[in-house]
Amino acid sequence: MQKNVVLITMSFLIDSLFGRLCYYFNKWQTNLQQEEEEEEEVAADHIVSRGGRPRVSSADGVCKCHACYGGPDCSCQSVPECIIDLDHGDPTMYEAYWLVNGASSTTVIPGWQRMSYFAAAAAAPATHTSSSSRVEQQQQDVAVWFMEHELDVQIRALHAVVGNAITEGRHIVVGTGSTQLYQAALYALSSPEQSKPTCVISAAPYYSSYPVVTDYLRSALFRWAGDATTFKLQQQSSDPNAAEEEEEQQYIELVTSPNNPDGRIQHAVVNGSGPVIHDLAYYWPHYTPITAPADHDLMLFTLSKCTGHAGTRIGWAIVKDAAVAKKMVKFVELNTIGVSQDSQIRATQILKAMTISQHIQNQNLFHYGHSIMSYRWNRLRAAVGSSSSSSTFSLLDFSPDQCTFFGKKTTPTPAFAWLQCNKEVDCEAFLKSRGIISRSGRHFGVGPEFVRLSMLERSHSFELVVQRLASCSSPA
Amino acid sequence: MQKNVVLITMSFLIDSLFGRLCYYFNKWQTNLQQEEEEEEEVAADHIVSRGGRPRVSSADGVCKCHACYGGPDCSCQSVPECIIDLDHGDPTMYEAYWLVNGASSTTVIPGWQRMSYFAAAAAAPATHTSSSSRVEQQQQDVAVWFMEHELDVQIRALHAVVGNAITEGRHIVVGTGSTQLYQAALYALSSPEQSKPTCVISAAPYYSSYPVVTDYLRSALFRWAGDATTFKLQQQSSDPNAAEEEEEQQYIELVTSPNNPDGRIQHAVVNGSGPVIHDLAYYWPHYTPITAPADHDLMLFTLSKCTGHAGTRIGWAIVKDAAVAKKMVKFVELNTIGVSQDSQIRATQILKAMTISQHIQNQNLFHYGHSIMSYRWNRLRAAVGSSSSSSTFSLLDFSPDQCTFFGKKTTPTPAFAWLQCNKEVDCEAFLKSRGIISRSGRHFGVGPEFVRLSMLERSHSFELVVQRLASCSSPA
Repeated sequence: MQKNVVLITMSFLIDSLFGRLCYYFNKWQTNLQQEEEEEEEVAADHIVSRGGRPRVSSADGVCKCHACYGGPDCSCQSVPECIIDLDHGDPTMYEAYWLVNGASSTTVIPGWQRMSYFAAAAAAPATHTSSSSRVEQQQQDVAVWFMEHELDVQIRALHAVVGNAITEGRHIVVGTGSTQLYQAALYALSSPEQSKPTCVISAAPYYSSYPVVTDYLRSALFRWAGDATTFKLQQQSSDPNAAEEEEEQQYIELVTSPNNPDGRIQHAVVNGSGPVIHDLAYYWPHYTPITAPADHDLMLFTLSKCTGHAGTRIGWAIVKDAAVAKKMVKFVELNTIGVSQDSQIRATQILKAMTISQHIQNQNLFHYGHSIMSYRWNRLRAAVGSSSSSSTFSLLDFSPDQCTFFGKKTTPTPAFAWLQCNKEVDCEAFLKSRGIISRSGRHFGVGPEFVRLSMLERSHSFELVVQRLASCSSPA
Repeated sequence: MQKNVVLITMSFLIDSLFGRLCYYFNKWQTNLQQEEEEEEEVAADHIVSRGGRPRVSSADGVCKCHACYGGPDCSCQSVPECIIDLDHGDPTMYEAYWLVNGASSTTVIPGWQRMSYFAAAAAAPATHTSSSSRVEQQQQDVAVWFMEHELDVQIRALHAVVGNAITEGRHIVVGTGSTQLYQAALYALSSPEQSKPTCVISAAPYYSSYPVVTDYLRSALFRWAGDATTFKLQQQSSDPNAAEEEEEQQYIELVTSPNNPDGRIQHAVVNGSGPVIHDLAYYWPHYTPITAPADHDLMLFTLSKCTGHAGTRIGWAIVKDAAVAKKMVKFVELNTIGVSQDSQIRATQILKAMTISQHIQNQNLFHYGHSIMSYRWNRLRAAVGSSSSSSTFSLLDFSPDQCTFFGKKTTPTPAFAWLQCNKEVDCEAFLKSRGIISRSGRHFGVGPEFVRLSMLERSHSFELVVQRLASCSSPA
């Protein structure tokens, strides 16, 4: 408990002193012979003492501040008027962690390196450990020609350490974020021979991007068909004889677990023969107890929710079937001719730092993240008050479970708060009137009384949100 | 002339001594406080004296060599049996340039930087030059929320220096390579309201990826309709009265200029009202004379052909119409939630180095590239011999034109050789039997007597190809 307090205090301290701390840290950490201009930019980037995000030359020191902070050095809280945007799940909360613990996470790429479309070749057999020999064998089966061998190794190493997914005997396909891999999976699991597009379904509330990402190109291969629960009922109620005569409706079910937006552990609801895509972006110990290594046919993970590096656009799929993996590789080839080598190098560096730090409790991101998230959820619940129908808001309750990674019971602390307005019809509009941008339940296949709020924002934004929610919740 | 000889000799020297030169250069250039492991990897990466590309720990020094080189230090040329793959246009030729001239092109990204989905904000108005004020204004019109402001600035600066495209008053949209932007353009230029998919056409021979990238998702928005010349004839021959009654067939014409595969300057062939996408990937002075700044509605460029950084996966579109640019941004958002921030930082660094070096003739990539390409085309033409129907091969002839960038007449030196076999029906199969992998004309909408060969490979591969072609061409 005391440890957590230290961690959280540290995070606040870092967040509030982000500027100067960061600048000196950076100087100490890298000591690079960079061109002057570059150094000036870095300095200017973090010269501000609180909440700043300037993008100017250091000559005049004018700042562009984080939302809700103003003044020449961004130290002024312009609270009453400002808007806090929690629409996206932008994981900027983790900046503070990497600033302190990132000594080994700096990526350096000389101009002449990694220029080819093709990834650096895999290690020669002589130098392999038994683990990388398996990787080598699998890469021969499914040539992910644009994937850095070392990234494959580091992904497997991290899953082994965390115990959240089985990777042995599986193919790993890297993508430009898991959004690209979601589309690659739809492409791989549907067939151009079908007369009708394959129905893509997911139990509501489902991730708001799924419908639009499925349908924007109006593909004849697949189409969004909404709530998997309704689809299941339709299947059960249809006449079995009639069904035999017609061509069976093909479907792909999506299971996001823990779920985006509501954080619940999910399972497939359609008991059919259709393939299932498991989006496990949030199945990491800072968000949910790791109860067992996931072992599904097709699992999606992303760097953005694991380490916070959303801008790096790296996701990966763990795939059992070689033919499916091959088709996914083909999709990425056609869609973007592979995946940025620079992002892959950075992801490799970041994941290596994660695995190395896993035994050092006070320096491990999962411990850090879980502490911050627990603190935030406590703050949020206190602000929102009791979840009765007479209160302004309701939040879901979560039961603790044994987490194999932490070796103790932990309570889920999801990356999003799924808030229900009990007195307002349109919760999004209500929060907007209080200066909070959220995403309405309508985008997730449910009613406007729900909203999703990101819990991964920088500390100062989160604290302002909590203050505002508390003022809504308290009796007038 | 003497200057060119110096440059070419230098390129050979660098290529043949790539290993050690590179290692010491790297040490001198960066002098970084990196973790030991990282340094060992870099050292191992380039410990080989010729043609090597090892990916092993330096402990045992086992190498993985470039194609056609073998032995413990990759110095042995296993010429007779080896296969040289010139199927892709992988621009590895430029590694040698960046190794020597890349002092300011090293990218350094600390672990805590650029973590957000959103790009670093644009500079505050107070610090703007008149040029970046315009950029700012345009970015407000079309919010490319995932695009680094500084990348936008550097792209405009390079085009201004080279004089190959007008960017003033245009929107710039960054993409994960120009392949993604090609799809974004199709999405932006077609309409979901149409009853039939928009026909996508291009004069044959056209870039082999266009048909498959257009059709792989079987979109109802657009479909590949082949050779623009045939489409034009169909339009002209159709009954004008009948055409009025039916819904007019919508089309998008693609113009690649200089053309991939044959290097010719191209213009739209359909004289209709349909939009035109200009793929100007090769409209740079190392490949073709720059006769005037291009000024089309929608132009695509890519880092890979300009600087050789294919693995970075950065392309950009220059777009006149704000509504089209906005739809392209939407596509990139749905397809990959933006573009890797790491790649954008690297591209910014590389483009800045290009612009800075433009006045230093012996250090400028365009001068370097043009010299090497001229040398290679001379070597190729000498190997292939006279382009008569009695010879084994034919190559297109190109006329010189005034290049505004070089300030003199230059002859086109395309990135691909478009080779015609005069005595063989299947040119690809014939070359394969001689150990050269090429891409058949069939993929480009023409006959199998043609093949495309990349001219951008590393020197040793190119030299082996020239030797093999010469041996085919000489009388038996």
